Amino acid sequence: MALYFGNTSDSLVADALAGFARAHADLVAHDVEQGFVRALHTSPARRVGLVSGGGSGHEPLHTGFVGLGMLDAACPGRVFASPHNRQVFTASRAVAREDGVLHLVKNYTGDRINFGIAAERLVHEGIACSRVLIDDDLASESEEIAAGRRGTGATVLVEKVLGAAADTGLGLRDLTDLGTDLVSRCRSLAVASAAHTAPTTGLPAFELPFDRMEYGVGIHGERADHTVPRRPVRELVGEMAGALERSLGLGKGASVILLVNGLGSLTRLELYGVLEDAARVLDARGITTERVLVGDLVTALDMRGFSLSLMVSDAETVKLFDAPARTAAWPR
Amino acid sequence: MALYFGNTSDSLVADALAGFARAHADLVAHDVEQGFVRALHTSPARRVGLVSGGGSGHEPLHTGFVGLGMLDAACPGRVFASPHNRQVFTASRAVAREDGVLHLVKNYTGDRINFGIAAERLVHEGIACSRVLIDDDLASESEEIAAGRRGTGATVLVEKVLGAAADTGLGLRDLTDLGTDLVSRCRSLAVASAAHTAPTTGLPAFELPFDRMEYGVGIHGERADHTVPRRPVRELVGEMAGALERSLGLGKGASVILLVNGLGSLTRLELYGVLEDAARVLDARGITTERVLVGDLVTALDMRGFSLSLMVSDAETVKLFDAPARTAAWPR
Repeated sequence: MALYFGNTSDSLVADALAGFARAHADLVAHDVEQGFVRALHTSPARRVGLVSGGGSGHEPLHTGFVGLGMLDAACPGRVFASPHNRQVFTASRAVAREDGVLHLVKNYTGDRINFGIAAERLVHEGIACSRVLIDDDLASESEEIAAGRRGTGATVLVEKVLGAAADTGLGLRDLTDLGTDLVSRCRSLAVASAAHTAPTTGLPAFELPFDRMEYGVGIHGERADHTVPRRPVRELVGEMAGALERSLGLGKGASVILLVNGLGSLTRLELYGVLEDAARVLDARGITTERVLVGDLVTALDMRGFSLSLMVSDAETVKLFDAPARTAAWPR
Repeated sequence: MALYFGNTSDSLVADALAGFARAHADLVAHDVEQGFVRALHTSPARRVGLVSGGGSGHEPLHTGFVGLGMLDAACPGRVFASPHNRQVFTASRAVAREDGVLHLVKNYTGDRINFGIAAERLVHEGIACSRVLIDDDLASESEEIAAGRRGTGATVLVEKVLGAAADTGLGLRDLTDLGTDLVSRCRSLAVASAAHTAPTTGLPAFELPFDRMEYGVGIHGERADHTVPRRPVRELVGEMAGALERSLGLGKGASVILLVNGLGSLTRLELYGVLEDAARVLDARGITTERVLVGDLVTALDMRGFSLSLMVSDAETVKLFDAPARTAAWPR
């Protein structure tokens, strides 16, 4: 057993995927052999299939966003490990449309490699394939880290807006360009007061003193440069929002979509309190919060903390964000 | 500060409620002074207002189920404390319909008292008022405990089905009878591998050895008679489902609605694994799972565990369960 409530560590992801497919049989079909889920209902106007995936442990990402208006398919890997390129290839071939397939990939080496191999195989079979690389995590921005920023919370915003755009009938080139532009308009930052349970040991992945927090933690428990003292959430959220604004070059008069995302074990009381403070902070700085999305949407197993994401928005983005979607976990 | 990410312990619930109302301003109105939320959109066919409430710390219960097809209003108390009877009275008066108000009350002394006082005041003002008392928690069934079984997970099932029934235009008497009948068809059982954070201390409310779990825990951290050894979830779920079936007198050929509910910190991987095993167990015993509901719907702050609830169903119950609802947290 790996996590506390399970059968064997080998069956953890497979059992969960079976349960997911069972609970949401009205929304998704589950390819048990190949290990992916695909949408049962999609827009006939869509000309490009949208495929995402990545390590398990971030649920509801990505399977929870498969369905009408968002992803055509999602490929979960083992916990915190990339899906195999064969999964990605098979899923992509299954949902490819007249104008091919677009891969939505969080920026991690394993995912880049496996989606990359799958893409080569697809092109070899005559299926057009392009990629949008999501790299929103401000904490991993450093000139010393050649890998670039990690992909985290904003992934769900990108999946939603691109899904709605795909349903307008955009082609592969336009959709890729839009995705790349969307990603450039997103930044996220995460804090944690306690680590997730490491599936290999069943123990916390790292220890934090009671009155310290990890400022800039990653969704696999990647540590920040340093811990910081615990502080009132109003103050904390002010710092985080300030850092996101600076990175995006936002000033008075800007408009954003705000994501307040629980990392796993945060209570709803805390999460909605964070939301209230974040919205007030942005308001006080003259930034318009056009839309708010809240929930445990991009998690790090049972990590205790939250992330804030901003996506710079215009009327078109908001319209796409508002377009109806029907998936297991899209909360609006 | 009480929970980790907050401002002052006094402002915790108020801050969260403000954030909730902000995030879901399309669904609810927030009476800040009186401390309740009410639905913006309701069915014109409804003749009875449905009001629930209870201690905070169980979110999304009850505020997340205010909206079209479910509750007309919800009154949150402080963490794990009953709302004041003034809140309940004011909310009830605000949403009363031609045939009065129905209170959906989880079976705890404080809630019974405060909803009871509010009901007396309502009747005194000429507003008909009745009550459905929810007491599904099998673990608290004992001849020694005069208070009776506690109200837990099944609350969300009762709120959903009664909400849909209210939208068919049922009167207060019929709705009360249906609610009482529904409650008699529900049982729940919960297990935890770790306690919630006690808001007063910021520390775990109780300690459990690594390889033990609390079998029959309450949603305020009420301890079970004894802890049990950790075991594979298939085995655990088999025992739990067996106990629920016996209590409900279920046998081969029975039909149920199954709720698989996370208590706060359980990962989605574990929760969906539990769902898969629970559905298989029921299936193997010849019990038809007509519908499955899954998520963190009735939580105990950040307790690490889950509950299973069964509601014995017939065609009418399933139809009401399936009726559309639009609230912040109803997941279907």
